[in-house]
Amino acid sequence: MLFGIATKKDDDWWIGVTNPDTPHLSKYESLMFQGNGYLGIRGSLEEHYLNEKRDMFVLGTFDKFKNEATELPNLPDIVNIEIMVNGKLLSLNHGETTNYQRGLNLHNGEIVRSFDWLNGKDKLHFEFRRFVSMDNCHLFVSEVKVTPLSDNVRLQIKSGIDGQQTNGGTQHFVEGTKRLFNARFVQMQTQTQNSLVKFALTEYHRLFLNATELTLNPRLQIERRQIFANYSIDVEKDQCLTFVKYANVFASNDQDLKDNVSMDCLCQLKHVGRESYQKLLEASSHVWEEKIWQDSFVEIASHNNKPQIAVNYARYQLFANAPCDYSKNIGAKGMTGEGYKGHAFWDTEIFMLPFFMLNIPSYAHNLLIYRYLNLIGAQKKARQGGYQGAQYPWEAAMPEDAESAPLWGSADIITGEPMKILSGSTEIHVTADVAFGVYQYIKNTGDYSFAKRMGYEIILQCAQFWASRVTWNSEINHFEITDVIGPDEYKEHANNNAFTNYMVHWCMRKGAEIITDLRQNDLITYSRLNKKFDMKKLVKELIEKSSMLYLPAPNENGIIAQDDNYLSYKKINVNKYRTSDNISEIFKDFDLKQLDKLQVTKQADVLLLLLLFEDELPKNIIKQNWDYYEPKTIHDSSLSFSTHAILANDIGLYDRAFDYFEKNCQIDLGTNMGSSVKGVHMAGLAGTWKIVIEGFGGIRAVKDGLRIQPHIPSTWKHLKFSLIWRGNKVDVLVTQTYFSVISDGKIKFIYHDHIYHVEPQERVLIEI
Amino acid sequence: MLFGIATKKDDDWWIGVTNPDTPHLSKYESLMFQGNGYLGIRGSLEEHYLNEKRDMFVLGTFDKFKNEATELPNLPDIVNIEIMVNGKLLSLNHGETTNYQRGLNLHNGEIVRSFDWLNGKDKLHFEFRRFVSMDNCHLFVSEVKVTPLSDNVRLQIKSGIDGQQTNGGTQHFVEGTKRLFNARFVQMQTQTQNSLVKFALTEYHRLFLNATELTLNPRLQIERRQIFANYSIDVEKDQCLTFVKYANVFASNDQDLKDNVSMDCLCQLKHVGRESYQKLLEASSHVWEEKIWQDSFVEIASHNNKPQIAVNYARYQLFANAPCDYSKNIGAKGMTGEGYKGHAFWDTEIFMLPFFMLNIPSYAHNLLIYRYLNLIGAQKKARQGGYQGAQYPWEAAMPEDAESAPLWGSADIITGEPMKILSGSTEIHVTADVAFGVYQYIKNTGDYSFAKRMGYEIILQCAQFWASRVTWNSEINHFEITDVIGPDEYKEHANNNAFTNYMVHWCMRKGAEIITDLRQNDLITYSRLNKKFDMKKLVKELIEKSSMLYLPAPNENGIIAQDDNYLSYKKINVNKYRTSDNISEIFKDFDLKQLDKLQVTKQADVLLLLLLFEDELPKNIIKQNWDYYEPKTIHDSSLSFSTHAILANDIGLYDRAFDYFEKNCQIDLGTNMGSSVKGVHMAGLAGTWKIVIEGFGGIRAVKDGLRIQPHIPSTWKHLKFSLIWRGNKVDVLVTQTYFSVISDGKIKFIYHDHIYHVEPQERVLIEI
Repeated sequence: MLFGIATKKDDDWWIGVTNPDTPHLSKYESLMFQGNGYLGIRGSLEEHYLNEKRDMFVLGTFDKFKNEATELPNLPDIVNIEIMVNGKLLSLNHGETTNYQRGLNLHNGEIVRSFDWLNGKDKLHFEFRRFVSMDNCHLFVSEVKVTPLSDNVRLQIKSGIDGQQTNGGTQHFVEGTKRLFNARFVQMQTQTQNSLVKFALTEYHRLFLNATELTLNPRLQIERRQIFANYSIDVEKDQCLTFVKYANVFASNDQDLKDNVSMDCLCQLKHVGRESYQKLLEASSHVWEEKIWQDSFVEIASHNNKPQIAVNYARYQLFANAPCDYSKNIGAKGMTGEGYKGHAFWDTEIFMLPFFMLNIPSYAHNLLIYRYLNLIGAQKKARQGGYQGAQYPWEAAMPEDAESAPLWGSADIITGEPMKILSGSTEIHVTADVAFGVYQYIKNTGDYSFAKRMGYEIILQCAQFWASRVTWNSEINHFEITDVIGPDEYKEHANNNAFTNYMVHWCMRKGAEIITDLRQNDLITYSRLNKKFDMKKLVKELIEKSSMLYLPAPNENGIIAQDDNYLSYKKINVNKYRTSDNISEIFKDFDLKQLDKLQVTKQADVLLLLLLFEDELPKNIIKQNWDYYEPKTIHDSSLSFSTHAILANDIGLYDRAFDYFEKNCQIDLGTNMGSSVKGVHMAGLAGTWKIVIEGFGGIRAVKDGLRIQPHIPSTWKHLKFSLIWRGNKVDVLVTQTYFSVISDGKIKFIYHDHIYHVEPQERVLIEI
Repeated sequence: MLFGIATKKDDDWWIGVTNPDTPHLSKYESLMFQGNGYLGIRGSLEEHYLNEKRDMFVLGTFDKFKNEATELPNLPDIVNIEIMVNGKLLSLNHGETTNYQRGLNLHNGEIVRSFDWLNGKDKLHFEFRRFVSMDNCHLFVSEVKVTPLSDNVRLQIKSGIDGQQTNGGTQHFVEGTKRLFNARFVQMQTQTQNSLVKFALTEYHRLFLNATELTLNPRLQIERRQIFANYSIDVEKDQCLTFVKYANVFASNDQDLKDNVSMDCLCQLKHVGRESYQKLLEASSHVWEEKIWQDSFVEIASHNNKPQIAVNYARYQLFANAPCDYSKNIGAKGMTGEGYKGHAFWDTEIFMLPFFMLNIPSYAHNLLIYRYLNLIGAQKKARQGGYQGAQYPWEAAMPEDAESAPLWGSADIITGEPMKILSGSTEIHVTADVAFGVYQYIKNTGDYSFAKRMGYEIILQCAQFWASRVTWNSEINHFEITDVIGPDEYKEHANNNAFTNYMVHWCMRKGAEIITDLRQNDLITYSRLNKKFDMKKLVKELIEKSSMLYLPAPNENGIIAQDDNYLSYKKINVNKYRTSDNISEIFKDFDLKQLDKLQVTKQADVLLLLLLFEDELPKNIIKQNWDYYEPKTIHDSSLSFSTHAILANDIGLYDRAFDYFEKNCQIDLGTNMGSSVKGVHMAGLAGTWKIVIEGFGGIRAVKDGLRIQPHIPSTWKHLKFSLIWRGNKVDVLVTQTYFSVISDGKIKFIYHDHIYHVEPQERVLIEI
C-alpha cells in the first residue's frame, strides 16, 4: 500500500511527515485534521505559508452568502503563532531545517512537530504540540517550546485571532468586536452575515522560562478583523521558553451558553487556563480511550501495519467528525475542508451509518435524529416539487433547509457556458437511502424506542413521497420512475435507474409492512402516526404502487440494466481514465452530454444495488454483473472502491478485493497529493472500515439477522474486531483457517446459511 | 536623501529594486502602483507571495459591508500569471535568481522586470512588462517573455481572473458568473453586495514563439470565484516565448457602457487584442507625454537626482490617481492601497488641489465639481446635526453620502476597550477647507464660470453651516466654536482651535463678500442663489457672526494659542517620538486621553494657519510660533512636513527647510519599509511638489495676485518649472543668484512687495 504520508513501522497510530514539504501543505492540512464533533480545525502550520488553507468550523453553524449555497463558515483562525528570532521570521522555507518531524497521534488527536532551525548563526530547537479537546468541545490548546542551541536570542511571539479567513473568498462574518480583558485575554466576537449565528473566540497565553512562569502582559495589536497579542522575551542559550495558547470557541446555537456569551467564554477560559497543557491533554486522551477506542476495536495482523493504520485513520476521522449532538450531520468531507460546504449526502446513511451503529450506536442515533428534524426541510422540498410526504435534500445543511445543493457548477469545458447542477432536483434516491439507513439501524440495534418515536415516521414519510413520485406508464403497464440521476452521476436523465427503483420499491414495501405491523402490534404508535397520515389509505397506496413498480429484472445474461437505455449505449475503452490520478480526466475528452450516451459508469451503481440487496436478488448474478459493469466503471467517486472491494471478496475475487481495499485506503492516504486538499472523503474512510469489517470480516445484517462469513486477505495473519449487535458486544477473531465469536450477551449468527447460537462469554469457533 | 527603493543616477524617471526583496513586497506594491484615474492596480508581482496584497480598484465604486465603513471594493485580480518550468513553479523564493531588476518607469507608468532564474538544471531568462493604459481607461496589458538558456523546457502558464481577493477579509462581491467566449476569452461578471455596482472583467491571451503566433486554445480551470486559462508549451533552448495578457475592466457606473456590459467588454477586448503590447503602450505613453508631462514641468539641477526623482514620483502618483471624471475624488491613499478605504479628506483641497490647479486646472475642476455634487451629502450631514447649509464629511466617499468615517477604531492600549473615532463628528474644519479650496481655485484660474455655476454656492452653503454652528459665549461676548478636533488630532475636544476659528471666520466673511459682490455685479447669479438661500438674511447673519467670532490673537510673545487650553497644558520632551520610525510610538506611553492634556502637537496646526493666512496675520509672529510649536510637534501625520518645510524656507531657516523637504520625500520613498504598505500618502506627495514650487519656487497666490519669491536650497544649481496662472502658461527659472519669468500671456507678479509686469514671451529677470 503506497501512502503519500509517512508512517512508522512500530506505531499503528501515527501519520506524519519527516520533512517540511510545504508545497503539499494543503493535503496534510486535511489529513491532520483535529476535531471533536463540535469544533473542527485543519492541520495548518502555526506559521504562515503561501498555499495554506486555514479552516476552522463549528458544526451546524451554516450561513448563506447572497447567491451562493449555504455552507459552514470558516471561522477566524486561532492556530496562528508567528515567531521572530532576532528579528527573523520563523519559516521552514528559509534557513535550514533539520530533524523535522510532524505527526498526528491518531490515538488522542494530538499533533506534535519538532525540528531544529538554523538561520544565519542562530540555531534553535522547536517543539509544537496541540489538540482539540474531546473532553471540552470548545477548547483548543497549543504549546510551543523553543530552546536556543547556539546563543542567546530575542524571541518575539505573535499569537491571536485572525478573522481575515474566508471560504474561498467568501466572507461570512461581520467585522466583530475585538477586546482585551484583564490585560491578558484577547477576544473577538462576531456574527454570521445572514444566519446571525454569534461567535465568541477567546485566547489566553502563558509563558514559562524553564519551569518559571513569566508574568508578562502582551502588547496588543489590532488590525482589521484581527487581534494579536505580542510578546518579546530574551532567552539564553539552552533555556527553554514554553508558550501555551489556550483558546475557546462558543457559538450562539450552543446549548451550554448563557446570555452573556463573552463573559461565559472568558470565565471558562480563566478556569481552564489554570491547568497545564499536559493535564488538559490527558483529560482529552482519556475520553478518546474510555469512550471511543474501548467501544470500537479493530486489529489487523499483517506483514506490515499499513492496513491497521488505514483503518485506525478512518476511525479517527469518523469519530473526530461525528456530531456531538443530534441537530447536526456529517458533511461529505466532515469539517476537514471547504469541499461540499459541510453538506451531508446519502454518504451518511449508506456508507457512514453502518460504522457508527456497529461501534457506538449513540452516534448513529444522533445522525438519525438529525434526519427526523430534517423532515421539516424534506417536507418543504416535497411540497416545492408538488409531492407528498418527505423528500430529503440531496445536500443537507440545517435540518429545516429544503435543499442546499448549489444550482450552478463550472462552465462547460467545450462551450464555456455555466452548467446547471441537477443533483438537487434529480438525484432523488437519497430519500430511499435515508429510509434504508433508518431501517438498518433498527435492525442492527433493536432500538424500537427510536423506531416508534421517529424511525417509522421517517420511513413512512419517505414512502409517501415515493408513492406520489412514481408515474404510471401504460405501455409497460407499470409504475416507473423517470428522469433521475442514480449513483452513476454521468447519466443525468435516466429512466428507471435500477438502483433507484429497487430502493424505492423496498421503501414503499417497508412502509406498508410497518403500517400493517403497527396496526396489529402497536396501536399507540399506529394512532399517533394516523394523525399525521391517513394510514389506511397510505398502506393501500403503498402496496398497490410497490407491487406495480417496474423493477428491471436480470436479462438473459443475468445483467440488470442500469437504466432503460444504458445497455444500448456505445461502449468505449475506459482504461486510461481508470488509471489516471486526475479523477475528472474523462472530461477532457467528453462533456456530460456525451457521457450521458456512453456505457461508462462513474461509480458502483448496479453493483451497489447487488450489495445492499443480497438478500433479495439472486446471488448468482453478482459475478455476471461484476464482469459487465466493473470494467466500465472509472471510479470517479470515493464511494466506489469499497462496494467493489466487498463484492469482489464475496464472489471470491480475493486479489481484486485486496486491490480495491488498497485503492480505497489510498483515496486520502495515497500518493495523489491533490486528492484531499479540500478535505478528506468521509464515506471513503467509512468504506475502509466497511471493507475490513463487512468485507473481510464478513459482517452483514441480513433478513434473518447477523451474518458472519469472513475471508481475510492472504497476507493477513488475523483480523480481530468488536461490534455491537443489538446491544451485545461481540468480539470476532478471523484467521486464515478459522474464526471465533464471543459475545457478552446471547446472540445468534448465520454462517453459510447455518445458524449458530452464542451463549454469553462462550467462544464459538468455526473452521473455514 | 535616503531612499528605500533603488534609483538610477542617470534616470530621473525610474524607481525600482535590484533584488527580489520579497519580505518588503507590500511596500513596493504601493510605490509601484499603476493607474489612470479610473483603474488602479498595486504593483504586486505576477506570481504569488505570502505577504502580497493584491488590490485593484475602480474609482467611485464604493460598497458598504454590513457594519463597516463604505470603501472601494478590492476587485478580482487580473495581474496573476503563474509559470511552471518543467513542473516547478516560478518563485523568487526558490532556486537562484540573478540579474534581477524591477522598475517603474514614472514617465509612462510601465513596470519592467527582468531576471535569470536557475532551478535545478534549468536556467531561463524572464522579462515581464505591464501597464495600465492612459489612453483607454479600462485597459491593462501585460507581457512575459521567457527564454530557456540551458535546455528545452516545458512551460505551463496559468493566467486568469481571481475573485478570492478581499479588503482585509471583507468580501464586497457576490460570486459572479464565469464564462469562456470564443474558446479564448475568459470573463467574470460580478456585483458589489450592497451598492449593486456591476463589474465585468475580461481577459484574452496571445502567445508567440519567437515571432510566430501560436494558435492555442487554453484549458479552462474554474474554481470558486476564479477562472483561469492554462497553456502548456514546449520551448526550445534560446527560443523566446512571448505571452501577452490583455484585460479590461468595466463597471456599471461607467458612462461609456451600453446595456449588454458583457458583450461591450468582449467587443472592446477583441478590438484591442489585435494590437501588439508595444503599440498599446505607445498609445498610453503618448497621452502621458502630450496631455500630462508637457503641461506640467519641474526640473531640479542638484548634485544628485534624488530631489528630481522625488518630485517626478509625486507628480506620477498624483496624475495616476486623479479622477478622470467629476463624480470622484482622490482618497488619502489614492487607489494605491486599502488604507483610509479610498475616502477623500481635507487633504484634497488643502494639499492636492494647488498641484492640480497650477498644472492641469481641468483636474482641479473635476475635484471641485465632485464637491458640488457632494453638497447632497454635506447638506444631509448638516441636517443630521441640526445645522443649516452644508457640512462636508470628514471622510467622503460617494457624493451623496453624508459621512463615511468609521465610528470605531482600535481598542485602547490600556483598557482594552474599543475607542470611538470622533473625526467624523468633531473634525469639522473640513467644511471651511473645502470652501477655501474653491476660492483658491477661482483666484488661481480665474474660472468665474465655475464660480457662478457652483463655486460660490459651495462657499455660501459652507458659510451658512458655520453661521449655524458657532455659539454665543456671553462671558467673552463673542461667538465661539467649541468641542472640535483641529489639525492636531491629539486634542479631541478643543474649544476655539485657532486654525478652525480663523478658517471659519474667513469662510463666513468670504460668503458675505460674495453675496455683496453678486448683488452689485451679477444679478443673474444672485437671483439664482437667492432661490436657494435668503441672501439678504444670510449676508446679515454672516457679517454679524464673522465680525463677532472669537479669533485668538497673538499673545504678548506673539504666540497664537492652538486652542483655549493648550498653553496651560503640561510640556514634555517629545524628541524620542520625533525620531522614531513608528509614528504611533507615543501611544506606547500615553493614551489619547492623556495626550489631550499635554503640549504635544500631532502635526502642523497653528503653523498651517500661519502659512495659509500669511496675507492676514502679521508676518513677524511666524518665527515666534515656529519656535514655540515646532519643537512640540511629532509629525505623526504625512501632512506635517510640507507645511514646516515651506514655512522654514519663508523665515530663512534654509537648512531646516531642506531637512523637512527630505523628510517629506522620505514619507513614501524613504527607508521605513512599513510606512506605505497600505498605500502611499497622496497629500504627502502633493507636499513634495508644494515644497518645491510654493516653498523653494516661492509661488503663492496672495491677496493681490501671484507672488513669486523663490529661494532654492544651496545644493541646487537651478529649479525650473511651469505653471498655469489664470490661463497663462508661466515658466520660471530659479538659480542661486537670480530668477526669471516668462509667460505666454500678459501677467503680473509680486516679489518683495514690488509688482512686476510680464509681457507675453518676454523674459523678466530678477537678481536675488
